[in-house]
Amino acid sequence: MASKPILYSFYRSSCAWRVRIALALKKIEYEYRPVDIFKGQQNSEEFSKLNPLSQVPALVCNGATVVQSMAIIGFLDDVYPKPPLYPKDPIQKAQAHALAEIINSGTQPMQNLSVLKRLCTDPEKQKEWSHYWIDKGLTAFEKMLQQTAGKYCVGNSVSIADICLVPQMLNAHRADVDFTKFPLIQKITVSLSEMDAFKEADPFIQPDCPKELQGKGKKY
Amino acid sequence: MASKPILYSFYRSSCAWRVRIALALKKIEYEYRPVDIFKGQQNSEEFSKLNPLSQVPALVCNGATVVQSMAIIGFLDDVYPKPPLYPKDPIQKAQAHALAEIINSGTQPMQNLSVLKRLCTDPEKQKEWSHYWIDKGLTAFEKMLQQTAGKYCVGNSVSIADICLVPQMLNAHRADVDFTKFPLIQKITVSLSEMDAFKEADPFIQPDCPKELQGKGKKY
Repeated sequence: MASKPILYSFYRSSCAWRVRIALALKKIEYEYRPVDIFKGQQNSEEFSKLNPLSQVPALVCNGATVVQSMAIIGFLDDVYPKPPLYPKDPIQKAQAHALAEIINSGTQPMQNLSVLKRLCTDPEKQKEWSHYWIDKGLTAFEKMLQQTAGKYCVGNSVSIADICLVPQMLNAHRADVDFTKFPLIQKITVSLSEMDAFKEADPFIQPDCPKELQGKGKKY
Repeated sequence: MASKPILYSFYRSSCAWRVRIALALKKIEYEYRPVDIFKGQQNSEEFSKLNPLSQVPALVCNGATVVQSMAIIGFLDDVYPKPPLYPKDPIQKAQAHALAEIINSGTQPMQNLSVLKRLCTDPEKQKEWSHYWIDKGLTAFEKMLQQTAGKYCVGNSVSIADICLVPQMLNAHRADVDFTKFPLIQKITVSLSEMDAFKEADPFIQPDCPKELQGKGKKY
C-alpha cells in the first residue's frame, strides 16, 4: 500500500476497537483520527462527505473509504495477509466466523448506544436490556467454545473470533454480567489481554480517551 | 464434497433465506429439513444436539455442523467456489461486505422475532420499532449504492450484498416501509427477482410453507 491508512475511530466504540486490534496484530502503522460520537461529530459535514453512513470506524486507504468493522477487517486481511485473521481450514474458518457473528450480529447490535437511546431514557432499564442480550450472547459463545477452543477461541491461533470477543467484554462488564458462568471465555480473554496487539488497541490508552480515564480500563 | 449437505431451515427466517439463495446460486443440491421456529422446534433435544445454539439456519456437511448465515455462506464460497459471492477486487469486496453488514448487523438484528418479543407485546409498537430500524438501514444501504451499484448492488455481478438485501425487503414490506424513497434498491430487487436462484429460494415455495400461503409472497 502506498500511503499510511487513516483510521477514523472513537476510543469507546467497540467496533472501532475491533479494527484497532486487527491493525495491531498485523503491525500496520496508521494515522488515528478521533471522531467523538458522544458529541455527534460523526454527523459533521466533513465526516459525512468521507463516510455517507456517518459511522465509525472508517478506514481510508489510498483514497478509498472502507466502512463497517467486519468489512474493514476482511479488507485488511486481503491487503495485508500476515498474520491471517481467519483459519485456513474451511470448517475452522466457519467456526471462527460463526463465533464472531454471535457477537457481531447476535449481541453487539442489540446493546449499542443508538438502540439503547431508542429503547428508553431510564439507565436502569437500558442496563437490564443490555444485560439480557450480552448474557444470552456470551452463553452461546461459551457453548460453542466447548467445541472449538484451544489457547484462543479456535485452536491456538488468534482469529476474528478473539477480535470480536474482547471489546464485547467491556460492555459485559458495564452491564454487570456474571463472568464466572463463562470459564472458557475468562481463560481466553486473560491470554489475549497479555498480547501486545490487544494492549495497544485498548480504549483507555487511545489519544482521544479523556485524561481522567487514561489507563483506567477495568480487567475484562 | 462427499455427501449432499443438509440445510436446517424455516421458510420465514430471513437468515435461512440468505443461505437458500447462496445454495441456489451455486446450484448445490441439498436436503431441506424444516425447523418450525414459530412452534419452538429449534429448542428440541434433537436439534439442540446438532446445533447447541438452537438457531436456524444450520448446515450439516459431511458430519460437520456450520452455523450463522454469514459463516455458512462464507463456508459455501470456500468449498464450492463458483460462482464467487464476493467480488475479487479487495475494494469492491469490502463494499459488498459493508453493504451486507448494513443489513446483517445494522438492521436485521434489531427487528428479529426475539428482539420484538423482548421489547413488548403490542403488535403496533413492534411494527413501529421495526419500521424505524429498517427505514434507517435501507436509507444507509441506498446511500452506499449510489457509489457501488451496477445492475446489482456492486457492479454487474451478484454478491453477498444482494443475498442479504432481498430477504430484508420482505420484512420492510411487512413494516410498511416506503420503498419509493429507495429507487436503486427497487431497481436492483426487480433484477434479482427475475433470477432463477432467487425464485427458488423464495420463502413461499419452500416445503414447510403452509399450504394457504404457498406462492403468496408479495413482490419485494
